[in-house]
Parts: sequence; structure tokens; C-alpha cells
Amino acid sequence: MTYEDWVRQELGEISRALGFQYTPDEEIKNRLARIRTRMEKEHIEALLVVQKMNVYYLSGTTQDGFIFIPLEGPPLLMIKRELERAKVESPIKGIVALKSVREIPLLIQDHCYKLPVSLGLELDRLPVKDYVRFQELFPSTKLMDGSPVLRETRKIKSSFEIDLMKKAGDIGRKVYQKAKGILKERMSEIEFGGLLEAAAKKYGHEGLLRVNSLNYEAYTWHVLSGLTGGIVSQSDSPMGGLGLSPAFPVGGSLRKMKAHEPILVDFGTCYHGYQADETRMFSIGRMKQKFIDAYKACRDIHDTVLGEARPGADCEAVFMKTLKLAEKLGYKDNYLGPPGLQTHFIGHGIGLELNELPFVAQGQSYPLEEGMTFAIEPKIVFSGEGAVGIENTVAITDKSYQVLTPVSQEIFQV
Amino acid sequence: MTYEDWVRQELGEISRALGFQYTPDEEIKNRLARIRTRMEKEHIEALLVVQKMNVYYLSGTTQDGFIFIPLEGPPLLMIKRELERAKVESPIKGIVALKSVREIPLLIQDHCYKLPVSLGLELDRLPVKDYVRFQELFPSTKLMDGSPVLRETRKIKSSFEIDLMKKAGDIGRKVYQKAKGILKERMSEIEFGGLLEAAAKKYGHEGLLRVNSLNYEAYTWHVLSGLTGGIVSQSDSPMGGLGLSPAFPVGGSLRKMKAHEPILVDFGTCYHGYQADETRMFSIGRMKQKFIDAYKACRDIHDTVLGEARPGADCEAVFMKTLKLAEKLGYKDNYLGPPGLQTHFIGHGIGLELNELPFVAQGQSYPLEEGMTFAIEPKIVFSGEGAVGIENTVAITDKSYQVLTPVSQEIFQV
Repeated sequence: MTYEDWVRQELGEISRALGFQYTPDEEIKNRLARIRTRMEKEHIEALLVVQKMNVYYLSGTTQDGFIFIPLEGPPLLMIKRELERAKVESPIKGIVALKSVREIPLLIQDHCYKLPVSLGLELDRLPVKDYVRFQELFPSTKLMDGSPVLRETRKIKSSFEIDLMKKAGDIGRKVYQKAKGILKERMSEIEFGGLLEAAAKKYGHEGLLRVNSLNYEAYTWHVLSGLTGGIVSQSDSPMGGLGLSPAFPVGGSLRKMKAHEPILVDFGTCYHGYQADETRMFSIGRMKQKFIDAYKACRDIHDTVLGEARPGADCEAVFMKTLKLAEKLGYKDNYLGPPGLQTHFIGHGIGLELNELPFVAQGQSYPLEEGMTFAIEPKIVFSGEGAVGIENTVAITDKSYQVLTPVSQEIFQV
Repeated sequence: MTYEDWVRQELGEISRALGFQYTPDEEIKNRLARIRTRMEKEHIEALLVVQKMNVYYLSGTTQDGFIFIPLEGPPLLMIKRELERAKVESPIKGIVALKSVREIPLLIQDHCYKLPVSLGLELDRLPVKDYVRFQELFPSTKLMDGSPVLRETRKIKSSFEIDLMKKAGDIGRKVYQKAKGILKERMSEIEFGGLLEAAAKKYGHEGLLRVNSLNYEAYTWHVLSGLTGGIVSQSDSPMGGLGLSPAFPVGGSLRKMKAHEPILVDFGTCYHGYQADETRMFSIGRMKQKFIDAYKACRDIHDTVLGEARPGADCEAVFMKTLKLAEKLGYKDNYLGPPGLQTHFIGHGIGLELNELPFVAQGQSYPLEEGMTFAIEPKIVFSGEGAVGIENTVAITDKSYQVLTPVSQEIFQV
């Protein structure tokens, strides 16, 4: 039996027995219908999609290749490696081998007879070199930016997607239940983080938290204790922590955690590519009152956002309301970072990536809609002392919201 | 005290006490001198560097920003977030705040009085949208591809860099010593991988293994047991494993490991951004003879490559020699993947990223040079049954080589 025959005969059954869920045909068809409505509005005759999470969204596979989506007619998935596995993973009918990018126009012509007049590419991520290549390969086609169409379509999640995010949240729940048994005095931040991550992986957490960005790298299990919670770093986050080196100056460090200081654990879990993000507070012995009070303020702010979370609420207005509340509670100079370095968002969209729409943030005046999913994360930072915060991932429902990260919100004190 | 004052006064000492090594001024100066020689040859008057690992290489910091390198005169580091931390981390003198990309031309003019006639950008990774922005901001400047200059400079490592890779290799050594105590029958691949990773993090492993690519995501602790070792996936690798889902179809899976089957552990460790990559074999009870024999062949091929590893050896010729040897040993159809899906390299350059120069591969006819570092990884794959292999990271010295991953090469049998 050849390897290809083995894949065709065995891989589906083996992978399903180990928990693989493949995206149903109906789900892909709904996504394609939604994206085509937007393509039509933007006068894009076809999309050629290359970025891995966009290909996954539209095809159900992350095998290496491109998906071509014409406004009319079936999509074409062109796979460099590995073709037979892509056929097992994707419900799309038109899946062909791609040896070289050079073949793309020919494969498209074989598939739908003519090259499009306008072609959308992901100009937010596509490297210049690849773009130049496409210009040569499609000399008579107008190349356009297809990334807004993709971003806007992905911002509304289906129940299939929200179910996968719930499963990610459920992995987080199991891990937090174990975390109190893992945390010890004099353990380093990174050791605690590594053990939490190991527990999560055992339950199927995929480790990688994706961000749609050239340089922003997501990492899981952000463990910050005492003064490291007050350190800002490269990311657009109220605090980044010390990290392990100047090459990785974020997240847990080799600092040994001490009694009575705030230990902030901000992590995301990932299941079938879908993420849930949450933050909880830990302490060894009782946390100092100052931090307990600030944590209570974070919960108040968090609950205020939830009180507004329904279709139609304006994202910027919700953010501005939290600014006022933080000021009223006495945390004007500590809310979302140290003075001068405060961030300007209280929520970020989440799904296959950590920086999806919507942003509940300054300058983002648009309404929440049913099917949007985002993480709400009020944080309060004291330079040189520590940080506290809470974070949950929620989905907007027809009239209200549901929480996808069902872990106790009390301080985990050991 | 403001946050900025706290950083200036405290962060250097706190971070050094926790093991941070900052890149010395002399090291950065040497790198700049070497890159300028190449820029001159390519007629590039200045570089504007944005990709995180290139910025780190040239400045010593990964804080978010750009580094501008004129052929003559001091470099300029423009930092979006976080400025004071960048000043602690980088020995570069010219470090300024950057609020918006729009300010870049002005900051450059303030710094060196005139805009360059030609400017090198990383066209292999820079997104089209950003490039278009730079075209607007530098209307009279010729934009060129600076990525080959960066790639060629980074391919030769200094002793400072090789020392950091040795420290990464030493983390690997400590973890392998623990691994036999962790591996148990009926444990899942991903659970084993997660626990190995947790052990590595405790010793300072940074978790993230970087690859210079839009879609290729590196992950650590590739644990494949029995049939999952025979599964090919999206990556240009002899085998990818089953993984956890169609969104992450590589590496360890939830499959429970069994006695007598080959368990291949391919992982990289990362210290201060510098990586060491290695593969070893494990088994629970004695591995079947077929796999023991194939592993012996991998070691023979590995040792043959080492026998050639010295300045002047041709990369392609070394690879072709291993092809012949694999055929002679009876593994023509199993060497580097299943028939039709075999990869065409036996070694990949490694340093800050997993896909650096040199490639010991078909079509890569150029000599090894002192200071090159690469991973050698012969693998033998049996579809539906399993895979074996060995991998070590080495540095080319003035006459020969040194191994940076000093772990026993015997099968780890529990």
C-alpha cells in the first residue's frame, strides 16, 4: 500500500478516534456565502487566500497551500503539502496539487475557465516579494486588498465556532482546578506557567495562540508576580512582565514567587484553533489589602462591561464608561498600565486569532452584534509593586451574552 | 518616582540578577560593520529593519520598533513600546520614541540630516500595506530588498552567539536526563511533550521557536510514537505527526504511547533567542529490531555528515553523499519521508530562527564556512508503522566542527 492509499484509508478514522473534529460542509458553505456577499460589495471578483488561519476558516484544513474563491462557482484549494491529508480534512470538492506558485493561474483556468478581472489578496500580511510574483502571474488582473473582507466576515462567529471556543474555555477550567495544587512558594513564575501549560496540553490545548501580525507573538501562561506585574514591554498590553531574556521580554520569568504578593495568571487555551482567553489572580497566603481592593475594582469594571454587553452597544462608549468608573474608584493613574503607558482598550475580539474584531476601545465606535466574541480584561497596575486583573471571554447572543470561560472569579489563595 | 524612572534605576539590576544577558556594544558594532560591507556591495545606502529577530540581531532589544542603519554614521533605533526598556536592553546610543510610522522620515532627518537615495527593506516578510506606506513616506527614495543582506550576515555566528546556542543545548541535555523518569506506558504523546517542555522552561527555555516565514509555525517537543511517526503534514519535514486537530496537524497527539514502538522526540530549546535543535529516540521496553536497525543507519548517516563538516565542504555534495549511503544501507524508499514525499535536505541552518543559512540540501551548492551553525537530521520513515531519527546542532570551527547538543545518542529505553 502506498503512503497516499494509507492516508485515504486510515487517517480519517485514526484522527477522529483521537478527537479530531472536521469542519462540516454546511459550515464552510455558510462562510463562503457570507464572504461572497462582502466580495460583491467591494467589487472583488475573486479572492486568493494564503494566510494559514484564513485558509483554515475557508477550507477546514491548514495544509500548506492557497484557496481561490471566485464570486461564482466552486472554490479551488491548491495544496503544496500534504495533498491527501487536505482531502481528508477539508469538505471542499475541488482540491488539487500545487508544485509551484507559477502553476496557480493555470490551475485556476482549468477550474473556472477565465482569470478574474479583480483579485483580492491579504495585503495586511502578504510579503512584498510574493505580491510582486502575483503581479507577474496575473498581468491583466487588478490586485486589491482582500483582508478587510476576510476580517469582517470572521468577526461574526457561528455556533460551530462558539462551541469550539467553549471547549477551549473548558480546558482552562480544568487547568485552574489543578492550579492551586501546583503553586508553591519559591517556585519561579516560568516553572508555574510551564506546569499549567503541560496540564492544559494533556487536555488538548494546542499551545500556540495565534495573532495576525508580523511581529506580535502570542504566548500562553503569562504568570506575573509582585513587581514583574508592574513591568511594561513590547506588546500593547497594560503590562508585559519581565520574561526570560531581551529576546523574550514578556510573560513569566525566573523570579521566585513570594507570599502575600499578587500573582496574575493571564492565559489563553486553544482547541481546534479556537481560543479562549482568561485571567485570574493567585496568592500564597493572603494578598495585601491594596491588591485585594484593586482586584475588586477590576471585577466591578468587568461586570459593568457585561452589563452593557448586548447587540447594539457601542464599543467605544463601553470603553469610555470603564474609564470613568476606574477614575471614580480611585485608579485613574493605574488603570490599564502606568501613567503615560496606559492602553486604550478593555476588550479584544478573539477566535482563531487574538486580535480579531471587535475592539472595545477608544476610537472604535461601532455596535456589538450577535455572534461577536471578545475577551474583557480590566487590569490595574502599580509600578514596582504588582498588577491585578480579571479576564473572561464572552459571546454576544441575540439579547445578551454568554461567558465561555466558566472559572470561579475568587482569588485562588494557597 | 515615575514608571520611567523606576525602569532606568531598577530594571537592569533586577533582570541581570535573573539571568538576563544583554548584547555587548562590541558585538553590535561587529555585526553593523559586517552588514555594512554587504550593503555597500549591494549599493544599499541604508536599511530600515522591522522584523523582530533582525531588529534584535542589530540592536540587542526586541522592544517594538524599527532600526535605521545608514552606511555611515550611527544607527537609529525608533521605539514604539517600550522606550525606556529598550534603552536598558540595547547598547545603541541613538534610541528615540516613535509615536507613528509617519514620523520615521523626520526622525531620520533629525538624526543624519538627509534621507537615503536607496533604502533596503525586508521584502521577504514586509506586508504589502506597510511597503505602500513606506513608498508614500519616502517618495524620492529607491526601495530595495534588504533581506538577502540580513540573511547573509546572520549566517556566520560570533562566539557570543555560539555560546548562547550552547546554553540552549545545555537546557536540552538537562531535560533529556529527566525524560526517562517522565515517560510512561499509556501516557499520550502530547502529555509527554508538555511535561518535557515544562521541565525545559524551568531551566530557562523560551518556548517559542522562531521561523522566518508567513505560515510556518514552529512548535517545540515533537513527540511521535508508532504510526504517527509515519504521518506527513504541512511542513517541509520527513514527517509531521498527527497533532491535535486540523488547525494544528503537527507534533504530539492524544495517542497513547505503547510498548516496543519507536518514540521519536524532536525538539528545540531556546535561550536568549538562540536555538538548539535535537532528536533522540525513546522506547518503552525494547524497540522492534527493524527500528533499531534503521536508527543505526540514521546514526551512520549523521556521522558521515560530521565526517565532512569543515570549512570548504560543499553543502549539496554532503547531502548527495547521504542519499547514496541511505540507498546502500537499504533505505532508499524510507529516507527523509515516504516515497514521493521525501524532503531534500539533511541539514538546516539555525540560530535565531530555524530556517537560516546554510541548507545542506539538494540545489544548495556553496561551501560551509567557519561560524556556520546547523542542525543535521537524518530520519527514516515507515508509513503506517513509525519513524526513527537523530538530530544534533553543530557549529563549524576553523578546521572542523563542534557539537552544541551534548546528549547521549543511545536509545532512551524505559
